[in-house]
Amino acid sequence: MDDQYELVAGVFSNIEQENTESAELLGVASERCYADYREMFAVEAEREDGIEVVVIVTPNFLHFEVAKAALEAGLAVICEKPMTLTLAEAIELDQLAESTGAPFLLTHTYSGYPLVQEARQLIADGEIGDVLTFSVQYLQEWLTKEPEKNDRQAAWRLDAKLAGAAGCLGDIGTHAFQLASYIMDADLTSISANLTRSIPSRQVDDNVHATLVFNDHIRGHLWASQTAPGIENNLNIKVVGRKATLEWSQEEPNVMWLRPYGEPSKRITRRAEFLGEYAASSTRTPGGHPEGYLEAFANLYSKFAEKIRKQGFKKGWLADTRTGVQGMQFIELAIESDQRGGEWVHVGEDA
Amino acid sequence: MDDQYELVAGVFSNIEQENTESAELLGVASERCYADYREMFAVEAEREDGIEVVVIVTPNFLHFEVAKAALEAGLAVICEKPMTLTLAEAIELDQLAESTGAPFLLTHTYSGYPLVQEARQLIADGEIGDVLTFSVQYLQEWLTKEPEKNDRQAAWRLDAKLAGAAGCLGDIGTHAFQLASYIMDADLTSISANLTRSIPSRQVDDNVHATLVFNDHIRGHLWASQTAPGIENNLNIKVVGRKATLEWSQEEPNVMWLRPYGEPSKRITRRAEFLGEYAASSTRTPGGHPEGYLEAFANLYSKFAEKIRKQGFKKGWLADTRTGVQGMQFIELAIESDQRGGEWVHVGEDA
Amino acid sequence: MDDQYELVAGVFSNIEQENTESAELLGVASERCYADYREMFAVEAEREDGIEVVVIVTPNFLHFEVAKAALEAGLAVICEKPMTLTLAEAIELDQLAESTGAPFLLTHTYSGYPLVQEARQLIADGEIGDVLTFSVQYLQEWLTKEPEKNDRQAAWRLDAKLAGAAGCLGDIGTHAFQLASYIMDADLTSISANLTRSIPSRQVDDNVHATLVFNDHIRGHLWASQTAPGIENNLNIKVVGRKATLEWSQEEPNVMWLRPYGEPSKRITRRAEFLGEYAASSTRTPGGHPEGYLEAFANLYSKFAEKIRKQGFKKGWLADTRTGVQGMQFIELAIESDQRGGEWVHVGEDA
Amino acid sequence: MDDQYELVAGVFSNIEQENTESAELLGVASERCYADYREMFAVEAEREDGIEVVVIVTPNFLHFEVAKAALEAGLAVICEKPMTLTLAEAIELDQLAESTGAPFLLTHTYSGYPLVQEARQLIADGEIGDVLTFSVQYLQEWLTKEPEKNDRQAAWRLDAKLAGAAGCLGDIGTHAFQLASYIMDADLTSISANLTRSIPSRQVDDNVHATLVFNDHIRGHLWASQTAPGIENNLNIKVVGRKATLEWSQEEPNVMWLRPYGEPSKRITRRAEFLGEYAASSTRTPGGHPEGYLEAFANLYSKFAEKIRKQGFKKGWLADTRTGVQGMQFIELAIESDQRGGEWVHVGEDA
Repeated sequence: MDDQYELVAGVFSNIEQENTESAELLGVASERCYADYREMFAVEAEREDGIEVVVIVTPNFLHFEVAKAALEAGLAVICEKPMTLTLAEAIELDQLAESTGAPFLLTHTYSGYPLVQEARQLIADGEIGDVLTFSVQYLQEWLTKEPEKNDRQAAWRLDAKLAGAAGCLGDIGTHAFQLASYIMDADLTSISANLTRSIPSRQVDDNVHATLVFNDHIRGHLWASQTAPGIENNLNIKVVGRKATLEWSQEEPNVMWLRPYGEPSKRITRRAEFLGEYAASSTRTPGGHPEGYLEAFANLYSKFAEKIRKQGFKKGWLADTRTGVQGMQFIELAIESDQRGGEWVHVGEDA
Repeated sequence: MDDQYELVAGVFSNIEQENTESAELLGVASERCYADYREMFAVEAEREDGIEVVVIVTPNFLHFEVAKAALEAGLAVICEKPMTLTLAEAIELDQLAESTGAPFLLTHTYSGYPLVQEARQLIADGEIGDVLTFSVQYLQEWLTKEPEKNDRQAAWRLDAKLAGAAGCLGDIGTHAFQLASYIMDADLTSISANLTRSIPSRQVDDNVHATLVFNDHIRGHLWASQTAPGIENNLNIKVVGRKATLEWSQEEPNVMWLRPYGEPSKRITRRAEFLGEYAASSTRTPGGHPEGYLEAFANLYSKFAEKIRKQGFKKGWLADTRTGVQGMQFIELAIESDQRGGEWVHVGEDA
Repeated sequence: MDDQYELVAGVFSNIEQENTESAELLGVASERCYADYREMFAVEAEREDGIEVVVIVTPNFLHFEVAKAALEAGLAVICEKPMTLTLAEAIELDQLAESTGAPFLLTHTYSGYPLVQEARQLIADGEIGDVLTFSVQYLQEWLTKEPEKNDRQAAWRLDAKLAGAAGCLGDIGTHAFQLASYIMDADLTSISANLTRSIPSRQVDDNVHATLVFNDHIRGHLWASQTAPGIENNLNIKVVGRKATLEWSQEEPNVMWLRPYGEPSKRITRRAEFLGEYAASSTRTPGGHPEGYLEAFANLYSKFAEKIRKQGFKKGWLADTRTGVQGMQFIELAIESDQRGGEWVHVGEDA
Repeated sequence: MDDQYELVAGVFSNIEQENTESAELLGVASERCYADYREMFAVEAEREDGIEVVVIVTPNFLHFEVAKAALEAGLAVICEKPMTLTLAEAIELDQLAESTGAPFLLTHTYSGYPLVQEARQLIADGEIGDVLTFSVQYLQEWLTKEPEKNDRQAAWRLDAKLAGAAGCLGDIGTHAFQLASYIMDADLTSISANLTRSIPSRQVDDNVHATLVFNDHIRGHLWASQTAPGIENNLNIKVVGRKATLEWSQEEPNVMWLRPYGEPSKRITRRAEFLGEYAASSTRTPGGHPEGYLEAFANLYSKFAEKIRKQGFKKGWLADTRTGVQGMQFIELAIESDQRGGEWVHVGEDA
């Protein structure tokens, strides 16, 4: 969208014919279409015009090894979430990113929305006062029936071997978790979670109820469900501070509510004049000209380009390997709590 | 509102002058203005035109003894919630109501809304399929600051001796609990709860996070907060079934959302043509002519008059002593779970 | 609702048996159930406890003669709109009210809503700056089909002899007109109108498109339709001032939007703390406890009781015979303009 | 967004240095950066890889001459609206497009929204029945103050010599007109319009009130204002048919309301499963992942690419020179009506 990236090389399939056909379709020169990512990193490293950034959009179980190889090759990495299948792997990548200094972007798209960034800014600036509590929900209908029987996308996401033990928890629960953590700029301390599946034969959970504590004192609820009929992609958050309540919903992303105590609520829209510098720099159209999901996604890439070029980048505002570690902590602790019948478990405690 | 009740006698204050003045203001004959409710029940029982229904609107700590005396006198009782301060008292009233056959109404106003009744009907009729999960929230801003310092209403509600150990839990948490239980027509099985107070000097909780299980398998979240700035009286519920999701919010009570799987959502309004018999009989104006809180409240009285007269009354659709027992179970178990650090506790288990 | 009026006498039907049965049902003593309104006014005038206020809820064609007789008897009058069938009659009543000093209330219910009163106050206080323009719409579905074939209510409303030549124009167009006039506190100057009927056999219009000028310079649109499928009772208004835009909609009456230039919009709710004195005195429940149509209606009665008692009454804030004259001007000019193909016609000009 | 167009040549400024700098910035080879559009068309026509499509984004007064030259050179043209400054020019371009067969796209962005296309489809399919009436509004706040004093964009748009005699009428009134005409697939027959300016010194109108008749019988209102404080870009339309009412608003473009008679309203979202083939082909993301203004704009380009390639193009669904003629008719008749004090004027009549 912003012409800051160009696709120049890739591994597009593990089936040779699909691989070359995809490369052609995407305009990638045939000599830069590789059968294997290790080969690609090795060969490209020799080229003067070699790849600078690796984008990992494979099934989850491959994220770790590809990201590791890329970081070791000193390449910048853009990776879909979940970053890895285990916390241990996540920590390894985080350390690798730290030691190599290679930039890493975890594409938590929802933090690319200008009003999500603005929410974080308002809270950082004390506009809602100390945060007391919150609620974050992420509801979808897409697993209400059993799409895994017929749909390839659904099938790998619900196959514990390919996607990890976490179903709804890993797929959308982590988005809800990251949204809360990002907006409040707070770290998970404790969690009590129950994971359920609405269909007994399903391999992984499709519903998450969790109570979370951030920073040792901010307690709130997280609810993620992929079996909520009639609901498309409703990720929403309410954060309650001592001075104001703040609300945002992904399905109406150009609006945020600020509700000060004892005053009429304010409908803050995504127009640059209303926003702080960071959020304003994530908008492309004037107020009243709606922006959507693709723009949010593009914002991540655009900000990451600034990071790669070390130009005007604001530290801590893009999801990276640290975010990936936190996401895996959330997943592992949620699973552990669930296995103990919903007991409270704590970050940093041995299981 | 419906001219079905007339105020003919009462105890209006424990200060004599306030008592007689209030009686005069309310048009109650001076000989029927009593200093004491026991005296009132005794004297009125002798009159041919004696009271038929007792309305209890005292501070919480008096509910039990007045209700008990009234039931023993064979009078119908209308009581504000919470019905009692303890579960044991609630059970005693329930048994008394059972043995005397005296009708009892617990004024859970929100179940007087036509669309709440319709939600219950739709679920009973299987319109949303088996219920999988739910979320109920009740948020208010009124205790964000410390009104208990200056405001008499706030003061007694936050005084543990007068209002009971439950603050937000008893005041609005029970409304949220009853709404969920009423709409799903389901009984509490287990609960994990955390009660917090935002101001250390406050005697009782002002925030409730709970995970509830109804009927052994319907798991959901309940969140009640009285320190949510900018929010007036936002009681809302989402119930997720296998076929559809249903949503209702008290601040826009004339609208209910039915979201069938894979179809556009339907905006169901409170017009009699859209409603089942019971809900339709709770409406007073044509569609598009909004009804509100007072109408919901009046509906309870109107339906209870039917019960007293044994005319057209639909069993189980008005909150009674059984509801009161369930409410006290919810409160006591929530407090117990909280005291154990949020552990799961179960109905019917000894503490 | 406020126990300020009691029904003590009446004429309930021109069929004798219906008349006496209705009286009995309504608790009116049989000797005060009259066959004829003139007889009622004469007889009641002799009683010490005679009627003080006459409420006229007859079909439109009787409004004038009953109101005239009541005013001549010096009685206060509450009359449904339209006040009369012709402008000449309206002027006659207005002069009569003036000369007798008898209080007169025209029940334009929508101006009984607290937020409508608050809108008027905000504009009077200059909060939105000079008014530039407006749009008022009143849409209903109820005449989409041909209910006049089967429905008695619909039949008389659509019978030009009983209801007047104006159909939708008189029935709801006048409400929209009065709402705009009331909120802006402005008088009609000119109008260009087109009246249409969607069903050729219908006697009166069911759709009004009009451009109005108030106070010689505030130009806006009025659209009323009774054939808008799926819409219940959507009366809404937008008023554009130099400093802010203000919006209100009858189907969500507890909310008003104030949109200042260059700032986030404010959601003003019907809570007394947000309102000026007049609107605040029209509320009965705390913020977040919705009020509706019946409360708005009751507010008119309650304020009119203040007028009758000459207690705390705010002149010009209740619809009276002057409002009735303006309503009939609107109707007659709209019909005249329509008959001339939508030409502009002006108040005070001979036709 | 879809990689179907590449910028290869251009005239970027009439100031030489700005022109070459812009070309460089945009990645246009220096030999293909021209001082003059006529030269560009001549030189490019000689190149094998010469331009195929001309995009005109100049101030309004240049649209005609550039478009004419491009069409005469047989090039496809993408032109911002208004297409020309006069109806006569529009007719000339229309005839030229007809005779040369060169494809022409007028970028009425709002008809690029999938739900606008779906609205047109539903009406064409008879889903709302015969259209009875409509209301279209386009409100913005941007000219509330006097930005023309300081803002170059505002200055040329409000300079009658550069932008034409129509201010708000031409700038956004035409968008509202085109939206109504597009969705109903209907042609303007008659119009009564009043154009006003809120600031006497302003050269052109900033507010349009019009009553329109389409196809000789569909009468509705159009209101456009650029001085509506607090409103960003609120283009909205209601179309009333005999069977249902349909509503859409640009600020929430992923939702459309279908309100059938006597039934709950349906909230139709922009998910491909809900849409007809044409609208579905204009979506890029799954349901619940909002799309916005840029996607709508890109849809026009993408569909126009199909037209140029004569692949799968659906005739009549993209704005072209015919649309431009209709837009200029609307403008000229509106101005004429206004000059006659709002008299009705008719298409095809001599002034």
